[in-house]
Amino acid sequence: MPHDGQAMQSPIIADLLDVTRAALPPVEAVLTQALEAMRTRIAPAGKIDATLLESDQYAAHGLAWLATYVESLRQMQGWAERLQDEGRFGEMEQLIHQIGFGEYLNQIAGGIAMNQGEVARLADLGVSADLDAGAAGQLRRDGNSDAARMALVACMRSNHGRATFGATGLDEELEMIRDQFRRYSDEQIAPHAHEWHLKDELIPMEVIEQLSEMGVFGLTIPEEFGGLGMPKAAMVVVSEELSRGYIGVGSLGTRTEIAAELIICGGTDAQKEHWLPKLASGEILPTAVFSEPNTGSDLGALRTRAVKAGEDWEITGNKTWITHAARTHVMTVLARTVPDTQDYRGLS
Amino acid sequence: MPHDGQAMQSPIIADLLDVTRAALPPVEAVLTQALEAMRTRIAPAGKIDATLLESDQYAAHGLAWLATYVESLRQMQGWAERLQDEGRFGEMEQLIHQIGFGEYLNQIAGGIAMNQGEVARLADLGVSADLDAGAAGQLRRDGNSDAARMALVACMRSNHGRATFGATGLDEELEMIRDQFRRYSDEQIAPHAHEWHLKDELIPMEVIEQLSEMGVFGLTIPEEFGGLGMPKAAMVVVSEELSRGYIGVGSLGTRTEIAAELIICGGTDAQKEHWLPKLASGEILPTAVFSEPNTGSDLGALRTRAVKAGEDWEITGNKTWITHAARTHVMTVLARTVPDTQDYRGLS
Repeated sequence: MPHDGQAMQSPIIADLLDVTRAALPPVEAVLTQALEAMRTRIAPAGKIDATLLESDQYAAHGLAWLATYVESLRQMQGWAERLQDEGRFGEMEQLIHQIGFGEYLNQIAGGIAMNQGEVARLADLGVSADLDAGAAGQLRRDGNSDAARMALVACMRSNHGRATFGATGLDEELEMIRDQFRRYSDEQIAPHAHEWHLKDELIPMEVIEQLSEMGVFGLTIPEEFGGLGMPKAAMVVVSEELSRGYIGVGSLGTRTEIAAELIICGGTDAQKEHWLPKLASGEILPTAVFSEPNTGSDLGALRTRAVKAGEDWEITGNKTWITHAARTHVMTVLARTVPDTQDYRGLS
Repeated sequence: MPHDGQAMQSPIIADLLDVTRAALPPVEAVLTQALEAMRTRIAPAGKIDATLLESDQYAAHGLAWLATYVESLRQMQGWAERLQDEGRFGEMEQLIHQIGFGEYLNQIAGGIAMNQGEVARLADLGVSADLDAGAAGQLRRDGNSDAARMALVACMRSNHGRATFGATGLDEELEMIRDQFRRYSDEQIAPHAHEWHLKDELIPMEVIEQLSEMGVFGLTIPEEFGGLGMPKAAMVVVSEELSRGYIGVGSLGTRTEIAAELIICGGTDAQKEHWLPKLASGEILPTAVFSEPNTGSDLGALRTRAVKAGEDWEITGNKTWITHAARTHVMTVLARTVPDTQDYRGLS
């Protein structure tokens, strides 16, 4: 760590990976206890009761956050241990790992801010355990310390010009993909992005063709339908690097990702065979037609109606904020197919 | 509380005011402990050391939040007890009081979110006390409960058409002022506000003259300078009611408030005699020229320079986002008067 000569104690906790590993069982026990408490509340007969889930939605929402935090800690531990095995668990990675554990454990113990006005606290989830003792307590006290944050900032400052802060732990193939798209983004996107933005221009077709050639639109579509059949992590890496150049370009692949996912999960075989190869090649650019004026992203409240009329659906309503609508060939529309409903139930 | 017939236990804690009163000493002890710990850190010789304050700014910022929270709880207790004495501590006021105590005590114990990425926790402030036992513990567990929030929402729904949620505890004169400005705002501001906004129009001079006549610009200016000499609470009430109609109107009085305060606190006698009566009457509309392109509200980073040139100051720089600049007669400018400084030190 860069410092200015004085003797300085490292803010990194001794035997860090052992300490973070030892903090997982107590936090997993908290999650188990919260799950049991929630089962009693919303599934007294074994199956989730929709009415009880509705009235206990605050706690249920909090439980989802808690489960996500616990899984994040598990995954961070896996990331750190893989790097350690490869001899790549350096100072920056150690600081990220330690600060992450300290902060997440403190939020789990003291309250997870689901948003500015809603905090999920263990008491709300029916959990009485605390996380003050042992490894969890040590990480809560010394993990996200002032000194650790200062040391991390020093590392970040000397990181200039690199694509990520610390080793990602991704495999070589994904890192090669990252390098490829980082170079493309730096050379072909970033120099033009501000001008496209100021002139309110569409992304040039030339760029879209280049993305097609690089396989962006077929990344995660199964090979049998003409895609590359790669994991979601590939889409994440590509979207990050393209978005680094311009969010308008980075979000192009995401349109196809959403449409393909919907067709893969909910489409007929004929729909899959018809649409997926064209989506994978970029021949067809899709978009998602979800948002409405006045509802924003509160999709449960949307009012567009769809009524079956013979073979077709008749759709009535207003939509807005349709990403890339001007260039799109197929739209996936979210509409209310069960009349007289007012929330998320009744949408298709 | 409105409910639909079933027997329902009240979510309001028994002997609420006694419980909240009993929760104050432990939370005040936490603040005392934090203050002592901070003194040791940043004022080891008795006087605050600017360098130590700078390096411990995270904890110092957290201490300010903690002190504000503790004072808020003290003031809430005073509000609730005054209402109780007047026989006006109804269900809605009790719920607000109980939920407020429950939430603030939980944030003090588990972390105060200073912003989305910075949480002030007791351990960071050098405090080891917890707030699990006794009245504080009871309020943390049962204060901001699901049931209490649901009951409060039911009260709020039946509050339609009233100016405030629950009794404010303000004196009769301030409530009369609120009523006066609420009526004015409903009749003269709200019906036109959306049109002014859509057409990007200035507030009509007629409205500004009406505000002058109602004394808005002299509310808190001392009587010797032609103002009404009222407390800040009057400005708060008036700003709330005018802003309910249109924020552009509600912020007009605030401009004068800021300018008058600066002149009262920092001006010469001659400046006070010259400016304050004209500000109080609304003859002069002032504005505050603080923000700059690229610095936003990070005032410490601003770059506009002022250099003494004989009797005058020569000012060089760019300013932006000047509220009501088009209508203003006098501007209070924040500029860098000590050359070669880069932070809040060196500004005037």
